[in-house]
Amino acid sequence: MTLLPELGTEIVIPVCAVIGIVFSLVQWYIVSRVKVTPDSSSSATKNGKNGYSDYLIEEEEGINDQDVVAKCAEIQNAISEGATSFLFTEYQYVGVFMVAFAILIFLFLGSVEGFSTKSQPCTYEKEKLCKPALATAIFSTASFVLGAVTSVISGFLGMKIATYANARTTLEARKGVGKAFIVAFRSGAVMGFLLAANGLLVLYITINLFKIYYGDDWEGLFEAITGYGLGGSSMALFGRVGGGIYTKAADVGADLVGKVERNIPEDDPRNPAVIADNVGDNVGDIAGMGSDLFGSYAEASCAALVVASISSFGLTHDFTAMCYPLLISSMGILVCLITTLFATDFFEIKAVKEIEPALKNQLIISTVLMTVGIAIVTWTCVPSSFTIFNFGVQKVVKNWQLFLCVCVGLWAGLIIGFVTEYYTSNAYSPVQDVADSCRTGAATNVIFGLALGYKSVIIPIFAIAVSIFVSFSFAAMYGVAVAALGMLSTIATGLAIDAYGPISDNAGGIAEMAGMSPRIRERTDALDAAGNTTAAIGKGFAIGSAALVSLALFGAFVSRAAISTVDVLTPKVFIGLIVGAMLPYWFSAMTMKSVGSAALKMVEEVRRQFNTIPGLMEGLAKPDYATCVKISTDASIKEMIPPGALVMLTPLIVGIFFGVETLSGVLAGSLVSGVQIAISASNTGGAWDNAKKYIEAGASEHARTLGPKGSEPHKAAVIGDTIGDPLKDTSGPSLNILIKLMAVESLVFAPFFATHGGLLFKIWG
Amino acid sequence: MTLLPELGTEIVIPVCAVIGIVFSLVQWYIVSRVKVTPDSSSSATKNGKNGYSDYLIEEEEGINDQDVVAKCAEIQNAISEGATSFLFTEYQYVGVFMVAFAILIFLFLGSVEGFSTKSQPCTYEKEKLCKPALATAIFSTASFVLGAVTSVISGFLGMKIATYANARTTLEARKGVGKAFIVAFRSGAVMGFLLAANGLLVLYITINLFKIYYGDDWEGLFEAITGYGLGGSSMALFGRVGGGIYTKAADVGADLVGKVERNIPEDDPRNPAVIADNVGDNVGDIAGMGSDLFGSYAEASCAALVVASISSFGLTHDFTAMCYPLLISSMGILVCLITTLFATDFFEIKAVKEIEPALKNQLIISTVLMTVGIAIVTWTCVPSSFTIFNFGVQKVVKNWQLFLCVCVGLWAGLIIGFVTEYYTSNAYSPVQDVADSCRTGAATNVIFGLALGYKSVIIPIFAIAVSIFVSFSFAAMYGVAVAALGMLSTIATGLAIDAYGPISDNAGGIAEMAGMSPRIRERTDALDAAGNTTAAIGKGFAIGSAALVSLALFGAFVSRAAISTVDVLTPKVFIGLIVGAMLPYWFSAMTMKSVGSAALKMVEEVRRQFNTIPGLMEGLAKPDYATCVKISTDASIKEMIPPGALVMLTPLIVGIFFGVETLSGVLAGSLVSGVQIAISASNTGGAWDNAKKYIEAGASEHARTLGPKGSEPHKAAVIGDTIGDPLKDTSGPSLNILIKLMAVESLVFAPFFATHGGLLFKIWG
Repeated sequence: MTLLPELGTEIVIPVCAVIGIVFSLVQWYIVSRVKVTPDSSSSATKNGKNGYSDYLIEEEEGINDQDVVAKCAEIQNAISEGATSFLFTEYQYVGVFMVAFAILIFLFLGSVEGFSTKSQPCTYEKEKLCKPALATAIFSTASFVLGAVTSVISGFLGMKIATYANARTTLEARKGVGKAFIVAFRSGAVMGFLLAANGLLVLYITINLFKIYYGDDWEGLFEAITGYGLGGSSMALFGRVGGGIYTKAADVGADLVGKVERNIPEDDPRNPAVIADNVGDNVGDIAGMGSDLFGSYAEASCAALVVASISSFGLTHDFTAMCYPLLISSMGILVCLITTLFATDFFEIKAVKEIEPALKNQLIISTVLMTVGIAIVTWTCVPSSFTIFNFGVQKVVKNWQLFLCVCVGLWAGLIIGFVTEYYTSNAYSPVQDVADSCRTGAATNVIFGLALGYKSVIIPIFAIAVSIFVSFSFAAMYGVAVAALGMLSTIATGLAIDAYGPISDNAGGIAEMAGMSPRIRERTDALDAAGNTTAAIGKGFAIGSAALVSLALFGAFVSRAAISTVDVLTPKVFIGLIVGAMLPYWFSAMTMKSVGSAALKMVEEVRRQFNTIPGLMEGLAKPDYATCVKISTDASIKEMIPPGALVMLTPLIVGIFFGVETLSGVLAGSLVSGVQIAISASNTGGAWDNAKKYIEAGASEHARTLGPKGSEPHKAAVIGDTIGDPLKDTSGPSLNILIKLMAVESLVFAPFFATHGGLLFKIWG
Repeated sequence: MTLLPELGTEIVIPVCAVIGIVFSLVQWYIVSRVKVTPDSSSSATKNGKNGYSDYLIEEEEGINDQDVVAKCAEIQNAISEGATSFLFTEYQYVGVFMVAFAILIFLFLGSVEGFSTKSQPCTYEKEKLCKPALATAIFSTASFVLGAVTSVISGFLGMKIATYANARTTLEARKGVGKAFIVAFRSGAVMGFLLAANGLLVLYITINLFKIYYGDDWEGLFEAITGYGLGGSSMALFGRVGGGIYTKAADVGADLVGKVERNIPEDDPRNPAVIADNVGDNVGDIAGMGSDLFGSYAEASCAALVVASISSFGLTHDFTAMCYPLLISSMGILVCLITTLFATDFFEIKAVKEIEPALKNQLIISTVLMTVGIAIVTWTCVPSSFTIFNFGVQKVVKNWQLFLCVCVGLWAGLIIGFVTEYYTSNAYSPVQDVADSCRTGAATNVIFGLALGYKSVIIPIFAIAVSIFVSFSFAAMYGVAVAALGMLSTIATGLAIDAYGPISDNAGGIAEMAGMSPRIRERTDALDAAGNTTAAIGKGFAIGSAALVSLALFGAFVSRAAISTVDVLTPKVFIGLIVGAMLPYWFSAMTMKSVGSAALKMVEEVRRQFNTIPGLMEGLAKPDYATCVKISTDASIKEMIPPGALVMLTPLIVGIFFGVETLSGVLAGSLVSGVQIAISASNTGGAWDNAKKYIEAGASEHARTLGPKGSEPHKAAVIGDTIGDPLKDTSGPSLNILIKLMAVESLVFAPFFATHGGLLFKIWG
């Protein structure tokens, strides 16, 4: 039926995954050639042994190279240790929770048929026998644990790479902005490819292992596989929220005392919170983002697989077609590999103004190539006509329709990326208007910034709506799921350009702390400004894909829970809808307040150190970095629990007490409301940050009338930047996990809710 | 079938309306006894001819009384003239729009049956003959015009009363805070009762006039009556948006230059924007609010009536039961009348700290009395069992169930009021926490304020959800509509305590401008601080009722458009849902940007005057108030058109091109998303305003550590207050009109959409 035989599929997927892993190791090796150990060989730099014959700035300026390298290495160590110790602490706490939740999954799902070990009639094909609910319970629990562990590994590896690359980027910045860019970008690529390939490989192996038990019962097999998505997203939630609170508490705290009160520059080594701030970039923006996108990827794959298993692919046991979602991701790895070469090898960045176009080209190249890739995969791996399960009926789909479903997601991602860039880059008028409004003070800056964020929602929502309409109309929930996969198919490139931002940010911090030449700092700042935009683009992708993923999961949940329609005009659904739309606000209130309180604690500690440590302000004494790291760690561990509990418990409480109809309403409401807040929060924050950088850089006539650093408009811009921090790095990006996680959790627990849920209405009714 | 005969109903409703009007005239007369003309009789004050024997402060301090009164009168005149001229300009522009829209209604509705003059089979009872669509077109257009005119009158009268009362409140403040409170509150009551009674009377007369033509065709009659709600809300939209932009452009502009740059107090007569600022309070907070709540009231009544007309009341032509919504409102007028006496006559306010409890008691008393009132109306006017049309089937409802529907709305309103008070009054910890966060600057203030607003959404949404669930379950859409009417039944009291705020604000402005003793200003400030809270409570009511009203209208629309379910999991509905949820953001972006731009223009003009008019800063020269008034007027007229067009055109475009299913999604999405933003925006703004007032008043040990005026925390608080202005007075409160108006517009145009809508899908399909 398909051009690619089953054996081919069995080979192609793991091979692509391995290629991705090998490619990322190669990149890692290249990065590792930049030495941060001030050993004897570094004196060989001059005679080109490191492969570079350009003179370093330090040498031109006659500063002792060895000292700077040693200092960079020392700072890098401190950041790396801080990040590692935080992640270990976080994983300990989350580990306890994960074990408890795993037990819960087992008990709830096992109880559906009273822990019976007998085979039961299948849910969708009543005439056949399927594996018992107890098996689903056991395997769901196992895949949940696997997903969580893979997510942990993804985040942890990302952090390790980032803390490995930051000082190297700083040192390379001595040779030029292009060299620094390449190191930062290569390191981002390491993370991107490792994560994409690892996620694919683990999922593929899990499916094959589960198949040994499940055999031909694909319905049960892929139902159990959804646990993988739940595990991935649960970890991502805590990673995002905990990391987000950590990074912003440190950042806001450091800025409020350092920049505002003491008037010392950002990342000044005299600031006691500076290490915590740099650690934060790695645990929040890198590890959190990695877990988040891994979660999206895992969930989109699971949603597509679970729908496919009850469609013609599953019913006719067509393994190649069944693996279509995984094959798309495999193709994505190859496409991203070629795309990366355009940035690292085919062209060379020489000037600051080439950075943003280079990153933008990455998006365009990967999208164009991937369109071809999708066509190849679709016409070789999918029959020309097949059926898809659509709320009780089988809907006929042609292969060109499926191709369009994936493409519409892919291209919607590109549009979202461009719109985000337009609203957050200081090369365009929206951010320049916000910067201009700083003339009349912080208040107008905030008003204009909030308005910008609200406005930036319009086009992405239309893009998402169009992709939903097309994919939904063509191939029901399967179409939506593969549209999400289409958007995520270039995840390796997306993550590379996303991770590049925090690495550059860290590099700038290290340059400042190591007391390197201001010219180095200027270069890393230029990298960082582009990084703010790419971070916003990355968040745009994450949110857009989260919207599609959670709709697909929602649809799978509704099918599994055996509801035929989700009619808004029934009381049960409508109250769910309005309460669901409220949840993102509740969640944001919690996370923002957490950042605020933690930042206040940090402020007190930093003030205390400035007041009690003699000679600190003069640079004669060293601050106590460790206490600040501890404050951020403790605060984020403590504060991540309530918002985490809100997200994890809501589906359980609503499902158990109010039943599946109300839960459907909650999912729809939180989805449509959360997407808006997430987009606007991350764009508002990005715009404020870049409005500040626009004034600081003073690259245009207009910018110079607002600056320089320390002017009244600049002070107003700093206030906006500080407000934007928790919006763009804590509450905003956590929201896409909220909407995905509630959907996948509902899907996993659907059999339980359908059997035992809705207690309150059972009593009332 | 009902205890109250039809003749009784015909008498009771107009009598109650007339009682309301008479009561408000009496209050007006009492207020008018405070003289602002410095005529000879004022020398009689000392010997108690005005009914007061207390000594005035001015007399104690030996200031010439006549001069102050003359000055107050002069300022009052300037404010009144500015407000009147703005409203006339606004009405001219809106008038043109209204005529165009009236023609549109006629053409669209007339075209449903091709302008045929023949009777047609009824929509719901196919065997009977109903009046032709052309009649619906003519009468809908007429009731649309009537609604718009009534809304204009409501807003205009409110403004007239407020500008009549402001100087009187200032003058009474010389005698004590209690006396000033009574004047302000009585004036608020004038507005509240006039508006409630007027709205009821016009609606009642319209129904009776239309009945002459329609006779027994109640289905057609009440379908035509919905135009009344549309007219009321369309005017309210422009009133709210235009007035909101006017008031906040002036306020923000005046504050940015006056308070921040020039360091002169609020309302200082040297500030050129000060008159525009005070005019703004009257056109935005008073006229806009009046039109808004009138719109809610008209729409809730129309929604209930249109559903009732196709239920057993309508089918059996039971006029008393049919008029149940109007009878509830009639009872509301009587209850509010008694409630008002508790504040004005039964008790006397003597100290500042008694103000907030007195206002809170108004809410409690009116709610408790109204519960009894609802019981009386329900058991005398409604049969013990009847049926309600519920999406195609007739659902049996008992009278006690209907009673509970109204009550749940009424009490939900009280809960929303209390929660709003808790989050916006500086007597409680949330606002105090926000004030405390000013220690670390404006950034933390903004973060905490936004978090507070998000958090304040939780309980109101649960309250709304519970009332929707109960009323929906008991009596379908009729239940939801009467729940909304329950919440609005105490509208006269609600408006009284709401209008009291801007009047006090103006009174303070006049005291400052007239150069009266600081002790007077302290008193008016105390009134104003309570006013901020009551304004937030008023907005809470407006939003809560808007949510219920628009759900009821939405339900009526779905019935009329002959859709059986609004299934979220169909592509057409889902894209509507997500785009609908985006609309409030788009709308907010427009209005906030408008305020920002208009404020920037104002800032430039104020700066220009300070720089070019010699002696202005020293108080030797008079500023050019008129130019500032003109800037605000021009900006708001120009800027209100795009957001107005967005709201008015969306239902038309979606209905015509995408059809009724997508439009249903849009309505549901904008409802559940808009409610959240509206509540959080208005509470955040209220909290910032009162955090600032908390620091300024310095009433507690904690507050004094943050103050005094001019300290760093105070400056941070002023920034928060300025940001909150457009949120709480422009974008936030306009959103509830957005959700109501789109729903009522869809309902009015439903026959057209059902016949000719969905062009795009007709082509695509």
